[in-house]
Amino acid sequence: MTLTEIICKLSLAVKMNVLVANIGSTSFKYQVFDTVNGTVLSKGRVERIGQPGGACPDYDTAIRQCLNDLQAELHAVGFKAVHAGPLSGARLVDEEVLRAMEEFAFFAPAHNPPYIAAMKGFKKALPELPLVALFETAFFDAMPEAATLYAVPYSWKQDLGVRRYGFHGASHRAASENAQKVVNKRDLRHISCHLGGSSSLAAIRGGVAVDTSFGMSPQSGLPQNNRTGDLDAFAVLFVMKKLGLSIDQMAEVLASKSGLAGISGTSGDVRDLNDAIAA
Amino acid sequence: MTLTEIICKLSLAVKMNVLVANIGSTSFKYQVFDTVNGTVLSKGRVERIGQPGGACPDYDTAIRQCLNDLQAELHAVGFKAVHAGPLSGARLVDEEVLRAMEEFAFFAPAHNPPYIAAMKGFKKALPELPLVALFETAFFDAMPEAATLYAVPYSWKQDLGVRRYGFHGASHRAASENAQKVVNKRDLRHISCHLGGSSSLAAIRGGVAVDTSFGMSPQSGLPQNNRTGDLDAFAVLFVMKKLGLSIDQMAEVLASKSGLAGISGTSGDVRDLNDAIAA
Repeated sequence: MTLTEIICKLSLAVKMNVLVANIGSTSFKYQVFDTVNGTVLSKGRVERIGQPGGACPDYDTAIRQCLNDLQAELHAVGFKAVHAGPLSGARLVDEEVLRAMEEFAFFAPAHNPPYIAAMKGFKKALPELPLVALFETAFFDAMPEAATLYAVPYSWKQDLGVRRYGFHGASHRAASENAQKVVNKRDLRHISCHLGGSSSLAAIRGGVAVDTSFGMSPQSGLPQNNRTGDLDAFAVLFVMKKLGLSIDQMAEVLASKSGLAGISGTSGDVRDLNDAIAA
Repeated sequence: MTLTEIICKLSLAVKMNVLVANIGSTSFKYQVFDTVNGTVLSKGRVERIGQPGGACPDYDTAIRQCLNDLQAELHAVGFKAVHAGPLSGARLVDEEVLRAMEEFAFFAPAHNPPYIAAMKGFKKALPELPLVALFETAFFDAMPEAATLYAVPYSWKQDLGVRRYGFHGASHRAASENAQKVVNKRDLRHISCHLGGSSSLAAIRGGVAVDTSFGMSPQSGLPQNNRTGDLDAFAVLFVMKKLGLSIDQMAEVLASKSGLAGISGTSGDVRDLNDAIAA
């Protein structure tokens, strides 16, 4: 199901107008749906937030501008959020959820901070409006423990939430539902491939994820455009020692200077690499 | 080929007596072969080296004792060594090889130090005797670059040797040669499974490894009795931050307190776990 479909279901056919927010690291896009039939009542976008030459200095301003432009009355806001560790599923955005997203921002440094900023912006602008987050990890909540457990001290799981989670949930869920329709079989077993600047695989049985290439962070699994993918932990520790990198410096290299960008030494975008080869 | 067979081949039918040393973290076992037909001329073992109640305080003493016991004249010593990074294959043990083994001891903390100690012991006792190391990584030297490359800054590979290597080489090589014989097919494609306290897989085509579950260190790949196996690098960095662990403290947990021992919180030995369940 899409976020809109879930909201429609949750609202039990009560007609509500819901703004679904798509938050990029410097962009804010939205659509307003009505929950009975999913009609788009309004949509808009703000780009280059906080960037030189951009129209908006921050998310607060972008959100106020969006709310001013809106014709329809608003009853709720939905977010396709990424990572709050054990707080997965569809959640009302409260202090606990925001704290968990801040805690897990270390794992999703490109995604969690702008979502947190946008959620706080909506809370400030319309304090009474319910905000709902559907986490990327939700599609993987039913994976068996054998698929989520790392072979490390068990207390790390209990105390710190160290386990495999899974991401690209909305994409794999949609692919699975489409595959079920195409072959007209509910109990379908298939592997879903999400391929692009960021890529992952999911093994799915009857619409339920049973395994995925992703681990605890979006930096694991397949190599990405600028993120490392799976990597021997001892290679990480060795390089920190040899190059004198701190934890945060190493995290930054693995999350933004690795993947295809790291191997090529130039760009993680295949178009740039093709241009470079042609030149 | 076994180490003995390689030595037989290298020596080009010149009759030599070669001692093959099997070095454990606290044990020293050896056999002396003649290189023409592989006959065992002598064998022995010393256990509990440097342990309370053991007969030998160190490898130097164990080696001198072994050499005193030997009847046959000795022409060379062979070692099934583990990890010297880019210095793989069969190597004469010189200063360069010992330096590389010391450099990569971080990756193989249970294996490299006793091998280095034993090699130095033989050098001291019989300085003129040639010592040959056949590294565990050698069987994987022909893997295609796509199977060995991590998606990290390329300079890490060039400057620090960061790549996938592969271990359990002697075991996978023997399994492959046996499989070729059993099905009587040189160009066999198969997956070899080395399963035990330490486990790994190798994909093998025509007797040549094309991929393996191991990465840069024996702590990667499948979970082991007390070693972690594959683990999201961000989980490692996060736990270091939250628990205040140093690089060496984290390396120690991942190399000796993880795997089945970490998950169970008791032992990495299945017999102990069965006993604990029964109790």
